[in-house]
Amino acid sequence: MTTREMLEKLQNGEISIDEAERFFRQDMYEDMGYAKLDTLRESRTGFPEVIFCEGKQDAYLADICRKLYEKNGEFLGTRASKHQAEAVRQAFSQGPEIRYDEVSRILKLEKPGKEQTGCIAVCSGGTADIPVAEEAAQTAEFFGAKCERIYDIGVSGLHRLLGNLDRIQAANCVVAVAGMEGALVSVLGGLVENPVIAVPTSVGYGVSEGGKTALRAMLSSCANGVAVVNIDNGYGAGYLATQINRLACR
Amino acid sequence: MTTREMLEKLQNGEISIDEAERFFRQDMYEDMGYAKLDTLRESRTGFPEVIFCEGKQDAYLADICRKLYEKNGEFLGTRASKHQAEAVRQAFSQGPEIRYDEVSRILKLEKPGKEQTGCIAVCSGGTADIPVAEEAAQTAEFFGAKCERIYDIGVSGLHRLLGNLDRIQAANCVVAVAGMEGALVSVLGGLVENPVIAVPTSVGYGVSEGGKTALRAMLSSCANGVAVVNIDNGYGAGYLATQINRLACR
Amino acid sequence: MTTREMLEKLQNGEISIDEAERFFRQDMYEDMGYAKLDTLRESRTGFPEVIFCEGKQDAYLADICRKLYEKNGEFLGTRASKHQAEAVRQAFSQGPEIRYDEVSRILKLEKPGKEQTGCIAVCSGGTADIPVAEEAAQTAEFFGAKCERIYDIGVSGLHRLLGNLDRIQAANCVVAVAGMEGALVSVLGGLVENPVIAVPTSVGYGVSEGGKTALRAMLSSCANGVAVVNIDNGYGAGYLATQINRLACR
Amino acid sequence: MTTREMLEKLQNGEISIDEAERFFRQDMYEDMGYAKLDTLRESRTGFPEVIFCEGKQDAYLADICRKLYEKNGEFLGTRASKHQAEAVRQAFSQGPEIRYDEVSRILKLEKPGKEQTGCIAVCSGGTADIPVAEEAAQTAEFFGAKCERIYDIGVSGLHRLLGNLDRIQAANCVVAVAGMEGALVSVLGGLVENPVIAVPTSVGYGVSEGGKTALRAMLSSCANGVAVVNIDNGYGAGYLATQINRLACR
Amino acid sequence: MTTREMLEKLQNGEISIDEAERFFRQDMYEDMGYAKLDTLRESRTGFPEVIFCEGKQDAYLADICRKLYEKNGEFLGTRASKHQAEAVRQAFSQGPEIRYDEVSRILKLEKPGKEQTGCIAVCSGGTADIPVAEEAAQTAEFFGAKCERIYDIGVSGLHRLLGNLDRIQAANCVVAVAGMEGALVSVLGGLVENPVIAVPTSVGYGVSEGGKTALRAMLSSCANGVAVVNIDNGYGAGYLATQINRLACR
Amino acid sequence: MTTREMLEKLQNGEISIDEAERFFRQDMYEDMGYAKLDTLRESRTGFPEVIFCEGKQDAYLADICRKLYEKNGEFLGTRASKHQAEAVRQAFSQGPEIRYDEVSRILKLEKPGKEQTGCIAVCSGGTADIPVAEEAAQTAEFFGAKCERIYDIGVSGLHRLLGNLDRIQAANCVVAVAGMEGALVSVLGGLVENPVIAVPTSVGYGVSEGGKTALRAMLSSCANGVAVVNIDNGYGAGYLATQINRLACR
Amino acid sequence: MTTREMLEKLQNGEISIDEAERFFRQDMYEDMGYAKLDTLRESRTGFPEVIFCEGKQDAYLADICRKLYEKNGEFLGTRASKHQAEAVRQAFSQGPEIRYDEVSRILKLEKPGKEQTGCIAVCSGGTADIPVAEEAAQTAEFFGAKCERIYDIGVSGLHRLLGNLDRIQAANCVVAVAGMEGALVSVLGGLVENPVIAVPTSVGYGVSEGGKTALRAMLSSCANGVAVVNIDNGYGAGYLATQINRLACR
Amino acid sequence: MTTREMLEKLQNGEISIDEAERFFRQDMYEDMGYAKLDTLRESRTGFPEVIFCEGKQDAYLADICRKLYEKNGEFLGTRASKHQAEAVRQAFSQGPEIRYDEVSRILKLEKPGKEQTGCIAVCSGGTADIPVAEEAAQTAEFFGAKCERIYDIGVSGLHRLLGNLDRIQAANCVVAVAGMEGALVSVLGGLVENPVIAVPTSVGYGVSEGGKTALRAMLSSCANGVAVVNIDNGYGAGYLATQINRLACR
Repeated sequence: MTTREMLEKLQNGEISIDEAERFFRQDMYEDMGYAKLDTLRESRTGFPEVIFCEGKQDAYLADICRKLYEKNGEFLGTRASKHQAEAVRQAFSQGPEIRYDEVSRILKLEKPGKEQTGCIAVCSGGTADIPVAEEAAQTAEFFGAKCERIYDIGVSGLHRLLGNLDRIQAANCVVAVAGMEGALVSVLGGLVENPVIAVPTSVGYGVSEGGKTALRAMLSSCANGVAVVNIDNGYGAGYLATQINRLACR
Repeated sequence: MTTREMLEKLQNGEISIDEAERFFRQDMYEDMGYAKLDTLRESRTGFPEVIFCEGKQDAYLADICRKLYEKNGEFLGTRASKHQAEAVRQAFSQGPEIRYDEVSRILKLEKPGKEQTGCIAVCSGGTADIPVAEEAAQTAEFFGAKCERIYDIGVSGLHRLLGNLDRIQAANCVVAVAGMEGALVSVLGGLVENPVIAVPTSVGYGVSEGGKTALRAMLSSCANGVAVVNIDNGYGAGYLATQINRLACR
Repeated sequence: MTTREMLEKLQNGEISIDEAERFFRQDMYEDMGYAKLDTLRESRTGFPEVIFCEGKQDAYLADICRKLYEKNGEFLGTRASKHQAEAVRQAFSQGPEIRYDEVSRILKLEKPGKEQTGCIAVCSGGTADIPVAEEAAQTAEFFGAKCERIYDIGVSGLHRLLGNLDRIQAANCVVAVAGMEGALVSVLGGLVENPVIAVPTSVGYGVSEGGKTALRAMLSSCANGVAVVNIDNGYGAGYLATQINRLACR
Repeated sequence: MTTREMLEKLQNGEISIDEAERFFRQDMYEDMGYAKLDTLRESRTGFPEVIFCEGKQDAYLADICRKLYEKNGEFLGTRASKHQAEAVRQAFSQGPEIRYDEVSRILKLEKPGKEQTGCIAVCSGGTADIPVAEEAAQTAEFFGAKCERIYDIGVSGLHRLLGNLDRIQAANCVVAVAGMEGALVSVLGGLVENPVIAVPTSVGYGVSEGGKTALRAMLSSCANGVAVVNIDNGYGAGYLATQINRLACR
Repeated sequence: MTTREMLEKLQNGEISIDEAERFFRQDMYEDMGYAKLDTLRESRTGFPEVIFCEGKQDAYLADICRKLYEKNGEFLGTRASKHQAEAVRQAFSQGPEIRYDEVSRILKLEKPGKEQTGCIAVCSGGTADIPVAEEAAQTAEFFGAKCERIYDIGVSGLHRLLGNLDRIQAANCVVAVAGMEGALVSVLGGLVENPVIAVPTSVGYGVSEGGKTALRAMLSSCANGVAVVNIDNGYGAGYLATQINRLACR
Repeated sequence: MTTREMLEKLQNGEISIDEAERFFRQDMYEDMGYAKLDTLRESRTGFPEVIFCEGKQDAYLADICRKLYEKNGEFLGTRASKHQAEAVRQAFSQGPEIRYDEVSRILKLEKPGKEQTGCIAVCSGGTADIPVAEEAAQTAEFFGAKCERIYDIGVSGLHRLLGNLDRIQAANCVVAVAGMEGALVSVLGGLVENPVIAVPTSVGYGVSEGGKTALRAMLSSCANGVAVVNIDNGYGAGYLATQINRLACR
Repeated sequence: MTTREMLEKLQNGEISIDEAERFFRQDMYEDMGYAKLDTLRESRTGFPEVIFCEGKQDAYLADICRKLYEKNGEFLGTRASKHQAEAVRQAFSQGPEIRYDEVSRILKLEKPGKEQTGCIAVCSGGTADIPVAEEAAQTAEFFGAKCERIYDIGVSGLHRLLGNLDRIQAANCVVAVAGMEGALVSVLGGLVENPVIAVPTSVGYGVSEGGKTALRAMLSSCANGVAVVNIDNGYGAGYLATQINRLACR
Repeated sequence: MTTREMLEKLQNGEISIDEAERFFRQDMYEDMGYAKLDTLRESRTGFPEVIFCEGKQDAYLADICRKLYEKNGEFLGTRASKHQAEAVRQAFSQGPEIRYDEVSRILKLEKPGKEQTGCIAVCSGGTADIPVAEEAAQTAEFFGAKCERIYDIGVSGLHRLLGNLDRIQAANCVVAVAGMEGALVSVLGGLVENPVIAVPTSVGYGVSEGGKTALRAMLSSCANGVAVVNIDNGYGAGYLATQINRLACR
């Protein structure tokens, strides 16, 4: 529906002013004072709002979790500390069980019986990259994608990667998580048909520069079909992979 | 077919040594001395090898174009200069017509009658970003995707973007090309359902730093579903967009 | 009064040597040994000296607060820790009440009955930017400007910004506080008539680089009328906004 | 007029659909194919669209100049080359006279009889900074501000600055243009009451890093009331200064 | 004495082999296993070896202090922690008194009755720069130079600098210590006859980048006669100033 | 044995499928779930896998140590904390003795009676570089090389270096460890015949930038025969030196 | 004379208003419109103003040269192109002879019979550094210092430096010019008694980064008594060396 | 012979003063005024001095070539332009033939009948890296090493690398030349026994940053046994590889 069509409908009485106003979505958010929850996000983008927990105060965080739970029947929080998980659990002490994973730092309350479809291959270069890889995998799973985990296949022992190639090539989308020089991404990019979402991690020291070297190397990759997200941004990669997986499963 | 299965078939005489050797693809390339053409790439990744023309000598370039044409019946070259286009045209003077576009710097010889399917929205922030946007669009079209061009919709005049939103939301994938601060990407990311492939351009001066500011801004985007490629890498964005569009059209 | 006029007046006996000397303002400061308080600053710039508390020792800080209070009847301190606030409160235990705000980290003693005029719109991209936004707002209020707070209107949910546009357009000056990619500034810059003072914050991770990406993006903005201050410099933005608001209210 | 009010008026028949549609300004631009002219910009921001000439092709540039001239009766182009000036002059050969200034690289056609009000002090550290300073001054003058030029007053000969202080202090706004270490800005910031808009220039060598050192130094200034724009961005400074000067002259 | 002269003297029996060997100074150091004390440094450079305490273990530090005390009758340590000072004091508990200054972090044992000659002006931009300025001043004093301290004369209140100009101009050498944008150095450089040794400090935040902006600004200074040392390197500045002061006092 | 030869042998029955499969080494690793131990590394590269302890959890680390001990009869861990050393010791409490060195942070269990051959000179600029130098030396010794340690020979006291030149020139390979400006490397490079492996350290402050200045200086060295590894990468240097020493001892 | 003393003298009629006004030096410059010549600089700093020719237009440059010649009887220009030298020569065609040196790019007209005193050692690492070294030497000579040139003594052939050590140690001040890793400076700093002024040059490639690596290495030098100037700033080094040489010759 | 032994011999009359003086090598260079040829380098390091031609003037270059030819009977020049090659050829027009290779830019005159021993594998990622790879190979060949060239084996087509693995593993040393993300190095490092000398090239665009990304990626490599040289430094890699190859061939 274009703007003109909407305006014509309003003029013709086919829709009310309230409906017209909603069209412009200009006050379609939950104003909590310190925050404005984007409650229409799912209808607009296909994904509900997710909570970036890092740095949020306990009271605010619990409050936001509750609001989203009331609205959607579930919520997903990333980068939550153990302490925050405890605080949210207390706030929900009478209600459904909150789950917290210390590796991925994901805090969530999930609707029961959700199904997972399609296939995303989540690969890591080393064991130190697993927390970020898990953030990606668990995010994608929350959003309904099936994930295949293939960890510690960095290129310094190439046979580990080659020995798992069939599983990787079968996925709709590959999430490749690596620190240091991030060469895993270039090798994978040359061997698969579908998009590779590259996640540089802050693993490494010296000129690794907290992940910047992996990031730049991935962006400079000689392989095609490589899309890059911010350093340690497992959530972003899981989100993108879900978008692609959904398109493939339509 | 796994490695073991292949080895068993060889032992059982089901396949020849030549076929087995091909399995490992270890000499499956065209050795031209100065280059090793990856002639199996299409069967491996779904895309034929593409020529990055910049810096290639005339004789080599013409030679490689001919090799790929013989093999695939068409070829695609990116970042070709006018002079290179002339040189390749002369080498093909007896044969099919070579097409060269000065804006995108794409040089190609395309099979007639190819069809384009699906939909990719290719957006640019300003007119100066059009060469990169065209590289993306023409690459995707060469690979069989349909493209919708929506140029000069930078956020300093937000109504130009909002007025074209319906066309953008309808695409399987959005390519967003922008220089300077690259804010177009964040605004789009918040408004669409499918992946946004962000291409920073080297447009700008001073702290724009040849596209690095746009790149970092896009990677830091507050919006979800944003995948980033190297500065001015229209080709890479077109490739990725085609991968996603193909998955959506399966 | 030019230098020559002053010298002529001295020669003609119209002014004393003391007055002439004051003209050059060369010893017009309060020498505290470790510091030289710029006590003529208000007459020179229209604003009294403000205390940057971070890193100051308790005894020194309390001393300086007292000196400024004696001189001006009020004082403003920025980036004060809770501990420092306590120390200053003890030093003033017999006197007027010191106010400390943990969010903005502003410590102050304010003359009663000050009025606030004009209008400054203080906007933030996310909730994590609020401490810096509050530093700006409370600084401007201390200096006599009226502030309108509009928080959490980042561009990933554009309708939140558009829904508050009228209030923003009505201000004499906009302070836009944002981290990550700082796209809020470009969108605002294209929609308002008066200056936008952009404050990048250190919110974000990875390539956000502690606010440098937001800073560079704001300086590269495709929108006009954007002035930028240092990362997290809410105070500086509040000061500038007050200067502009005063000119508008003259 | 709020969105709701507009919608009610439409329902009540007080305004037409066309008027309502205009409210949302979603197709309020001149679509030239390669560009979308923001023809409503003046009504929205108080300033007409200005042409950044650098890199624009002759034909496009002349076309855009003509469009803006037809619409506004005048136009302003920045960073124009001598060659571009010639091309535009030819396109207007039958019409009014185009003016081009080689120092500032400003190309314009101005309505006769415009008046200039208020006062902006445009200062430069050295003679090499004059091109950028002139871009600022001529931009502000085009937009109707009166400018006072005070050049070559860098701090290595402090008396040159002090000897012109009265003129600088009298302005509604100071534009301070300097390269190398940009110390001029800090000294001015401590001596004036109104905002200082700092423009770093790419003048210098070695660690001056093409203006980045001046930029960072200005953002780090120990003086208050300093707003910074991009390197060599005289136009942006002139625009901001005009905004402030207009507020002061209201 | 040239190499040839030495060799001739050896041949002529005027010097012994031991003396000749010493000439080449190849084993003229005190080997402590983990360190090789450069005990001939004073005869070679005019200054004894100084101890950089930061990071040294207590036992080693005390040991080195004792070695240097035995050799020279005094020692100077920089960047010593309070804890280290305590440890060294215990090691010298029977002997002469060790002095430690918490501001400059200098730890020393000084010969009684040393005289100080010449004049070095040690200036600081703000109070936060005083620790570095004191390191410079106390180093120079230990090496026999007289110092004039002039603190908190940053350019945002220019009259504080101008009011102390006579004292600064009278020195053989100026040490100028400043953080943030370091403009103090450029203003001083334009007003004095003798060398200005600029010491950038890590005072500041955001784009101050831990002193790098001040450093680059000082190196880019438009003023002549400015020599720069590493960030926070008060010791190095005090050393250089002493070298210059000695030359002036010869 | 080439791929073809292997395939022919398989066809001829000279080798079994299991042996053929091993040839491709595609599942030749120990899968521990969170890690894939590269157990064939020694046969492939001549060196067993080494454990980078930093950041590994106690249980995982002890587990991996045990696996490698079972396989190889010894193991080497780098960057181990004191706490980790304790945890591994407890896991091996019934077995052979674990050795931990606090300076180099090397944790190991070594086969008795190993011999060391050849000669590597391990040099350091200062005492602060010793931890990295020891990591290099102890790594090389674990791998069977003889090491000569020559510490604290930085160029500010050149005679310390010159006095030890004979021992350095006699080595098959020099490891030069230095922080700050790393000039030691250039001086050594001009004086020796065999390769110099340069290890920048994070020793220094200000523009030393955590070792980046030493790194860049070493890569820019005017001397020939200088190979560089990552900042603080003593392990990598010890590994390379062993490779070279082995070639020399063949 | 202090400000007060001057004011008293004026009041007492001991000096005229004109003399008093001159005291403040506020209009003591030659205003040429596009430039303000600092004609009192020599009386203030002991050095006349010098012309930085790079980028100056021919007419302006010739004009400024003439103005300075009229005032001082000589002038010095740095970074002059051959073309500029020709232009100035033509402007002086009737007058005294202009001298131009293509290596140092110094353009000058010098009073006959000037004497040179003291001693400055000007050293270069390689032959490519000679242009910058010559700029330093010829600047110092113009200002009256005697210079000893010692070129191509980089540390990769250490004996070249050691063989010239006596001449270097005899100077009042050493100017050390080097590119790449700049290690020459550290070696010299450890061997001489007087200040070393380090000039990084843009000689080198890759990580030399146009002189930034040499600059940072020099600032990080492990040797004492090293003062650094901007990259390629031979003029600045010559100026500083002259200041120090003058103090030594007083 | 140690210093002491030499001195004793001199005292005993076993050697002359001239011989003793030579021992210290302090004037053992050919002083050409603008350059000091290091004629003893071969006896000290095993390699003669090589000429870095870039930027050298024709006359100087020809002169230096002649000097080295007279001394050694051959010479090697790197980074020579076609024009320089012509100039040197003219200077040698009566003598032996000069050879110049446009790809590697190597200019040389070589003794006939030199033999090449051992084996160095010189690998390149792409065809654009060949000039640097050739500089490495031809340098090593000049110094007497046998080279195996294996070009265009970048990891985006992994089978090209794996198909050549046997030849690479057989070498004493691998030179790996690659631009963009440089992943070739990590894959090779995991597959070979001997040292890999990594040469980053300036091939690439955007975040490749002229080779800095490849450089950092190589230094951060997850593989062991990787030594890195400066960007595009083929000469340095060839030199190092020769050193290692010589040790292996002893």
